[in-house]
Amino acid sequence: MRSAPSKCALGIDFGGTSIKFGVVHEHQIVSAAPAIQTSDFGDPKKLLDEIVDAINQVKTDHPEIEAIGIGVPGFVNFSSGTIHHLTNVPGWINIPLRNLVRERVGLPVVVDNDANCMAVAEWKFGAGKGKEHLLCITLGTGVGGGIISHGNLLRGANSITGELGQTSIDFQGHEGTYGNIGSLEKYIGHREITSNAVEVYTKHGEKKSAEDCSTLALAKAAEAGDSIAQEIWHDVAEKLATALMNACWLLNPECIVIGGGVAEVGKVLFEPLTKSLKKQLHPALADSLEILPAHFGKDAGIIGAASLALLDEAV
Amino acid sequence: MRSAPSKCALGIDFGGTSIKFGVVHEHQIVSAAPAIQTSDFGDPKKLLDEIVDAINQVKTDHPEIEAIGIGVPGFVNFSSGTIHHLTNVPGWINIPLRNLVRERVGLPVVVDNDANCMAVAEWKFGAGKGKEHLLCITLGTGVGGGIISHGNLLRGANSITGELGQTSIDFQGHEGTYGNIGSLEKYIGHREITSNAVEVYTKHGEKKSAEDCSTLALAKAAEAGDSIAQEIWHDVAEKLATALMNACWLLNPECIVIGGGVAEVGKVLFEPLTKSLKKQLHPALADSLEILPAHFGKDAGIIGAASLALLDEAV
Repeated sequence: MRSAPSKCALGIDFGGTSIKFGVVHEHQIVSAAPAIQTSDFGDPKKLLDEIVDAINQVKTDHPEIEAIGIGVPGFVNFSSGTIHHLTNVPGWINIPLRNLVRERVGLPVVVDNDANCMAVAEWKFGAGKGKEHLLCITLGTGVGGGIISHGNLLRGANSITGELGQTSIDFQGHEGTYGNIGSLEKYIGHREITSNAVEVYTKHGEKKSAEDCSTLALAKAAEAGDSIAQEIWHDVAEKLATALMNACWLLNPECIVIGGGVAEVGKVLFEPLTKSLKKQLHPALADSLEILPAHFGKDAGIIGAASLALLDEAV
Repeated sequence: MRSAPSKCALGIDFGGTSIKFGVVHEHQIVSAAPAIQTSDFGDPKKLLDEIVDAINQVKTDHPEIEAIGIGVPGFVNFSSGTIHHLTNVPGWINIPLRNLVRERVGLPVVVDNDANCMAVAEWKFGAGKGKEHLLCITLGTGVGGGIISHGNLLRGANSITGELGQTSIDFQGHEGTYGNIGSLEKYIGHREITSNAVEVYTKHGEKKSAEDCSTLALAKAAEAGDSIAQEIWHDVAEKLATALMNACWLLNPECIVIGGGVAEVGKVLFEPLTKSLKKQLHPALADSLEILPAHFGKDAGIIGAASLALLDEAV
């Protein structure tokens, strides 16, 4: 990758719920276009038409846009720009999104996994800026990630890398989406934390709703001294530490950046996580390891996708 | 790394039991020197004297040697050539091995982790020749590994990478050497397979000795139709598959090469392993993934260390 030129790109964060558009200049969103609700469009063809219309509108308003980056929630063949499979968007299987968009909007396009986009944003401009060895993860409905090693984003043989949520923390545990036993995502996904918390309170004789057990509500309770909520966060931290420890023993990053909605709870998660992770690593791995919250929050996907479009010479 | 020139190097495989020396030319051992028994020398200084004497003898006999590569069973700072810690060799902590040897023998020296050396041998000349994305692991008393990604050996921030044996398969499991809960090595190390097998047979009312339950004896029993032995190998395969699956979801290798004594049991391990691993991966990861036995066997350490000495411009 060459270093970022001072150019302007359109970043698109294609989520399972909504598709968001941002015009990005100097790693800042200078203008946003109305989001599309992903589920309003039943089949990929209709949704694609809507995306193309939105892009063309932005292009008319912002003729300075030179390239388009699209981050998607699933597996992409990066070199061909074809989507293998989007986990939570029905029908998006083997769709050559890059070529379809490029043909209809006449600009260079790059398509990548959304967690890779977030990793690029944090690595180039955010919490992991300037690091050579970086692991970025995002904690939300799912758990995703991107890996930078020796100053390069790792893509692997088929562009499926950094999928921390699919890694196992228990060879006899819960089955994941892909038959992967013990899949981290099935323990500490957003919904799993909440449903598990409802159960834990019930066992302690306290009746709580799912709303009472949202990750933010659980964080507030833990901060206010609720020992059950604290125990729940310790448990989440221990499970996440196991998966991160595995990545550290394999990759020896100098920094782990953690983003996504669940990470917004802050120190109730970060403190026990850092402690549990570091005590399971050799000092040569642990001593210099930083564990940091993401810088960009919800904008990371748009900024990362736009940055990728300019950095990688979208085609 | 540049490609291997047609040169000659001394490869040294520094093991917990013995230290072996081989003169390597064109990735073949053309001459071996007598091995040193590691435990015959109480402290690092005496053992180092013995190693230097052996090198100087080989150098006299083979003046064509241009560089020296040393593979060690533990953690090394690759850029400085200093050993952080050797797990099974007492006293080898923070020893600047590369500089000490270079000063006393007058040749360029490189020091690396033994599993990295094995990975280099298999990648440059063996089962993984020509692959861009490769995971090499070695199954013995311990479980080690080396990772090649985008055509480069990954070293990470402090040269501790590919340590598959330290990764966890159970967040509530056995404690590893470094406080790492669920450490794979504590389940499928050579000795652990044997002691577990003795227990399994006892539960089935059969009394077996540790010798009856060596990995090779267990393999022969499984091949002869012993259903208990077959179950033991399925169990080993399932645990190893969990750790390998994690590495695949993170790194997306095109090939996994498996060496070391335990891997010599062959298909009783490879067949259930391949099946268990592939069914826990997305087809885009699994379909093209090869799982292969190592090519070099016990010589991989010597050949890899010598290759590194020539490839990496030992200093």
